[in-house]
Amino acid sequence: MTVDTRPSGRAADALRPVRLTRRYTKHAEGSVLIEFGDTKVICTASIEEKVPPFLRGKGQGWLTAEYGMLPRSTHSRMDREAAKGKQSGRTQEIQRLIGRSLRAAFDLNAFGERTLHLDCDVIQADGGTRTAAITGAMVAAYDAFAVLVERQLISAIPLKHFVAAISVGVYRGVPVLDLDYLEDSGCDTDMNVVMTDAGHFIEVQGTAEGEAFDRVTMNQMLDLAQAGIENLNRMQKEALGLAQ
Amino acid sequence: MTVDTRPSGRAADALRPVRLTRRYTKHAEGSVLIEFGDTKVICTASIEEKVPPFLRGKGQGWLTAEYGMLPRSTHSRMDREAAKGKQSGRTQEIQRLIGRSLRAAFDLNAFGERTLHLDCDVIQADGGTRTAAITGAMVAAYDAFAVLVERQLISAIPLKHFVAAISVGVYRGVPVLDLDYLEDSGCDTDMNVVMTDAGHFIEVQGTAEGEAFDRVTMNQMLDLAQAGIENLNRMQKEALGLAQ
Amino acid sequence: MTVDTRPSGRAADALRPVRLTRRYTKHAEGSVLIEFGDTKVICTASIEEKVPPFLRGKGQGWLTAEYGMLPRSTHSRMDREAAKGKQSGRTQEIQRLIGRSLRAAFDLNAFGERTLHLDCDVIQADGGTRTAAITGAMVAAYDAFAVLVERQLISAIPLKHFVAAISVGVYRGVPVLDLDYLEDSGCDTDMNVVMTDAGHFIEVQGTAEGEAFDRVTMNQMLDLAQAGIENLNRMQKEALGLAQ
Amino acid sequence: MTVDTRPSGRAADALRPVRLTRRYTKHAEGSVLIEFGDTKVICTASIEEKVPPFLRGKGQGWLTAEYGMLPRSTHSRMDREAAKGKQSGRTQEIQRLIGRSLRAAFDLNAFGERTLHLDCDVIQADGGTRTAAITGAMVAAYDAFAVLVERQLISAIPLKHFVAAISVGVYRGVPVLDLDYLEDSGCDTDMNVVMTDAGHFIEVQGTAEGEAFDRVTMNQMLDLAQAGIENLNRMQKEALGLAQ
Amino acid sequence: MTVDTRPSGRAADALRPVRLTRRYTKHAEGSVLIEFGDTKVICTASIEEKVPPFLRGKGQGWLTAEYGMLPRSTHSRMDREAAKGKQSGRTQEIQRLIGRSLRAAFDLNAFGERTLHLDCDVIQADGGTRTAAITGAMVAAYDAFAVLVERQLISAIPLKHFVAAISVGVYRGVPVLDLDYLEDSGCDTDMNVVMTDAGHFIEVQGTAEGEAFDRVTMNQMLDLAQAGIENLNRMQKEALGLAQ
Amino acid sequence: MTVDTRPSGRAADALRPVRLTRRYTKHAEGSVLIEFGDTKVICTASIEEKVPPFLRGKGQGWLTAEYGMLPRSTHSRMDREAAKGKQSGRTQEIQRLIGRSLRAAFDLNAFGERTLHLDCDVIQADGGTRTAAITGAMVAAYDAFAVLVERQLISAIPLKHFVAAISVGVYRGVPVLDLDYLEDSGCDTDMNVVMTDAGHFIEVQGTAEGEAFDRVTMNQMLDLAQAGIENLNRMQKEALGLAQ
Repeated sequence: MTVDTRPSGRAADALRPVRLTRRYTKHAEGSVLIEFGDTKVICTASIEEKVPPFLRGKGQGWLTAEYGMLPRSTHSRMDREAAKGKQSGRTQEIQRLIGRSLRAAFDLNAFGERTLHLDCDVIQADGGTRTAAITGAMVAAYDAFAVLVERQLISAIPLKHFVAAISVGVYRGVPVLDLDYLEDSGCDTDMNVVMTDAGHFIEVQGTAEGEAFDRVTMNQMLDLAQAGIENLNRMQKEALGLAQ
Repeated sequence: MTVDTRPSGRAADALRPVRLTRRYTKHAEGSVLIEFGDTKVICTASIEEKVPPFLRGKGQGWLTAEYGMLPRSTHSRMDREAAKGKQSGRTQEIQRLIGRSLRAAFDLNAFGERTLHLDCDVIQADGGTRTAAITGAMVAAYDAFAVLVERQLISAIPLKHFVAAISVGVYRGVPVLDLDYLEDSGCDTDMNVVMTDAGHFIEVQGTAEGEAFDRVTMNQMLDLAQAGIENLNRMQKEALGLAQ
Repeated sequence: MTVDTRPSGRAADALRPVRLTRRYTKHAEGSVLIEFGDTKVICTASIEEKVPPFLRGKGQGWLTAEYGMLPRSTHSRMDREAAKGKQSGRTQEIQRLIGRSLRAAFDLNAFGERTLHLDCDVIQADGGTRTAAITGAMVAAYDAFAVLVERQLISAIPLKHFVAAISVGVYRGVPVLDLDYLEDSGCDTDMNVVMTDAGHFIEVQGTAEGEAFDRVTMNQMLDLAQAGIENLNRMQKEALGLAQ
Repeated sequence: MTVDTRPSGRAADALRPVRLTRRYTKHAEGSVLIEFGDTKVICTASIEEKVPPFLRGKGQGWLTAEYGMLPRSTHSRMDREAAKGKQSGRTQEIQRLIGRSLRAAFDLNAFGERTLHLDCDVIQADGGTRTAAITGAMVAAYDAFAVLVERQLISAIPLKHFVAAISVGVYRGVPVLDLDYLEDSGCDTDMNVVMTDAGHFIEVQGTAEGEAFDRVTMNQMLDLAQAGIENLNRMQKEALGLAQ
Repeated sequence: MTVDTRPSGRAADALRPVRLTRRYTKHAEGSVLIEFGDTKVICTASIEEKVPPFLRGKGQGWLTAEYGMLPRSTHSRMDREAAKGKQSGRTQEIQRLIGRSLRAAFDLNAFGERTLHLDCDVIQADGGTRTAAITGAMVAAYDAFAVLVERQLISAIPLKHFVAAISVGVYRGVPVLDLDYLEDSGCDTDMNVVMTDAGHFIEVQGTAEGEAFDRVTMNQMLDLAQAGIENLNRMQKEALGLAQ
Repeated sequence: MTVDTRPSGRAADALRPVRLTRRYTKHAEGSVLIEFGDTKVICTASIEEKVPPFLRGKGQGWLTAEYGMLPRSTHSRMDREAAKGKQSGRTQEIQRLIGRSLRAAFDLNAFGERTLHLDCDVIQADGGTRTAAITGAMVAAYDAFAVLVERQLISAIPLKHFVAAISVGVYRGVPVLDLDYLEDSGCDTDMNVVMTDAGHFIEVQGTAEGEAFDRVTMNQMLDLAQAGIENLNRMQKEALGLAQ
């Protein structure tokens, strides 16, 4: 299955080159630079020895995520959210998505009254920043839990599933995987899919930006996403040196 | 297909009683009270004779939506967002969804440099407020455009499709339609679906709150949603007195 | 005493039709829709089992109020305060007035360390929203305290006085009662009066918008207000099914 | 008429010593330090050569007021509003009152498309800051308009009336004039009255803080206020060197 | 050493007339009006019987400062920071400088778990407001600590050094002391220096506004500052009635 | 001159290894990663084809800077400023310093009505982030102006001086150059110096954090800074491939 007109020249079912660099910065318990082609996101995982007020005393942990873009990570400079004094609706939507996705990856009852803070900061954007963020944050979170194991604060990594995310869309009538910026801005439909390594869905968020899409197209997109996420799960495990 | 354990006692594929009351308040060009069972949302559509700065001079219209809940529309009182000085991430996510959904319903190039403001305010909440809001806002927007036709400012309602929305979920292992609050808080998966009256998708937003869900379940949920939305489209047209 | 030129056609001392609908929404301990003609305000009373920090441990209760208008409750759409991120000076002034007025109605030492939150949300505005809000909130608060009695948490409703409010003004030189929007925007003087059912004043707030007013006019306005409030007190008690 | 128990030892109808110091600071077109006993407020009037957007092109002027308290103008230090990032409801209420009162003093159609900004900053508080602010701002505004006359930008001061304000209250059952802090915090009723030098009312704001008050008391308070304001008007004119 | 062209006519090494008025307002433990020529700043020192959270239980005190300008303390009216809802970067920079400078003057371990709040409010600005604020706050803080001694809460004033501040600059090529507004707006370099009465530096903040400055000029400016601060320290002690 | 006890083991006058990586991200006109040892800052320079309102129509350009830290660039995670809704005083102080420093490097009258936005984002912090930011932003700004030359929008880079910055301090009694985090948190005095390649001062900001420092120490620190900045200027030019 190929698309001659795909701006990136990729096959419809091809991911961009993916790179996962662990220990990218030195302070965080987990720190990963993830690259989906020209999209580059720093994902750090920080452990805090307390939980938010609504969970205190319940013996349970918490995991939360924040997302940001450097002002000139994008083609034209965006205003800095800290200077404007508020996060955009898009930013909040994305960080809520990252948080929900990663909470599905780990057992919140198995790491004590601690909070794992995930910070996903885009240093260069070329489409798919939220899916790169989820995929990279999975590895950073794993590394942070490994630190807790190493410090003998918990006995095992509280893993439920490996979780990864990818975008799919309909570009010039053809369903394609992992849209870059050019493809994303020209596509009719954009769907972000988050799945586990068992092939189950955590999140599906599809939006018809131009024409509404039918059930057949939906199924084709889900097929592409599932295959793409299997690949990403494999790369996450390789990066972590885990036997498959 | 029935579910004995569904708290509402409804069949798995049954909507709650739906009521659409047009001209609910007197000032707005379109004003609809929509009820999905005990969920009650006031949807008003207001016409403004200008567009936001990014569209000025392009001869195109705009449509945008805001969403709010009265502090005691819910079981326990929530803080008032105006008093806190900011809208929650959830509020912003919902109003962005309503806006995108309704922009798919109308032709933005066919009503001049005007903005249609949709305000969806929940006065009583019992699950499904965002889907009720989209379904009611469709009717309010239609009424507002009819005012423009009546005033001879445009020649026809710039309709592309009727759009409606419904939630589906998995409750005790069974896919069910139109979750009320009790069902929603106990379900494993929650999906909001927005479709046109041609049976195409505008938005699909599914979240696994407990267990991740598989492809079979996804398909069952989409089937339920499609049937439910057909019903809602019919009710919208009846409310507007349109021949089918 | 009649005024030929009064836009509403009402006699100078005539209230608009008043309707009080109790149990208007289902979650709040007290929930009242109050209508002064076309002005419609939802007043809910919510009980919280704690007091603000400055009262903790003093064995005393608290009562506070918030006020809002739906964006299209008015003739032209107003910006949503939650979206702007702040309440206007007018909103704050009104909610402070409602709070002070209702704190005069009840004995704060007679319902334990609890807070009664009054939320007054205008769904349709046609003048007099603050006076309708006070008059309706009185009934909602009464109902909420009745719930506390029913739950045997307090032995009696901590009532000091029934409290109601009405506006008076000078329209085309003639003092008139209960101004609607048209009258209000054309009047010279606007005064809001809050009184007890013993005929005493809780609040008097008069503003000369055009010409300053003299002492004779002031006395005429206070006479009108007193008679109007006696009527409102009677309707409040009827709505609550109280023997007079 | 005397009150033995009045903490200040003043007669019931006695003002505190009043001092008006013109040209208190050097930059503002009008700058007055007003003292009501230990209450000290700096009132400046600044002319800006434009009007707010809603008045542009209408050939009309505008007058607006802001109010603030130095953090340690009060007995205990208050938080600085600029540091908290918002003005309290009380601050907004007071500055709206000052603005309305002074707009009644001048003819907004008689000084061109200019804005007069009144800034009333309390440097020491001992009760009655808002009434001192209004009374002092009247003189500062007069001086600022005199500058416009001197610069030959307008032909005459656009004066409608002299306006002054005073508080009255019920202290230990007796109506008294011009409450200081000790009296204010112990009184049952507090009323602020703004009047013209023709003896007409601009604003009346009375609040029963303890017991509701009756019509007789109201009349006694209004009598006290009227006499007090006559005195203040005389002092304003003396300070300005105006023949009476 | 004289400068013919200095707008103020002062010698290059001459301070403006300095006046320190203690007990300027009545509520604060320390309250000083400091005047550097036409620059007038009210400095109050308020004692709070607790420390910020990060210091609780450490047996140590804290000292912090806030700075503000009345809107018309300046030549043209500035927006009120409380109304804008945020302090400017300049304001924050200045209040951080005042706080650091005064924390160097006192032993934070010698006055218990208390906070000294310094509020420096400019009522008239003519250049050098931050240096006047530091110099005046020193005296206000001393007075506030004297109150603690008098109340027998501490045994001695926790003084480390007397601290004062002055500006120096290069005006038309000549280094000069204590710039007023006219000199400041026309100068090439502006440096604020904070020193102890032992002749040591607490803060040096120099900025080349036009031409960068060389080492020789830097030394000349430091010489001027040192001599000026010796004078200010003497005046501070005189004002406090301390034997030298 | 060596210091045995310097935690980094460096000589007192030794910089950390400095690396300048140009074209670090792809969208910005200038994009530099600068490393001072473990301190890593991304500096981007973005050209906008307009100036702020206060400069419009004056034929002059503008240059402004913003600064941020990724939440986990530091040893413990800091709150994200965008999520808190405001920039700290420290952040504002630093970005104002960067802006002033770089405005001294270029001729604002020589690049038309354009704004150069400098964004300095710390991805890893180990002391000296503001000095690294200034030094890196100089190179990014140079690259951005080179783009304007290349596009034939200006005829030459509007360079006045090369500007660089370094910190100096007193660690265990010895003046040292370029403090890392460990040294910075333990030092008595911290001074940031910004100089031109002509050896002149742009900014000097010294703070005694423990003991006040004397004139001799000040001179020693300035000597160290001057030598360090000469080195940095050389590296900047090398990175840009400029003949010296």
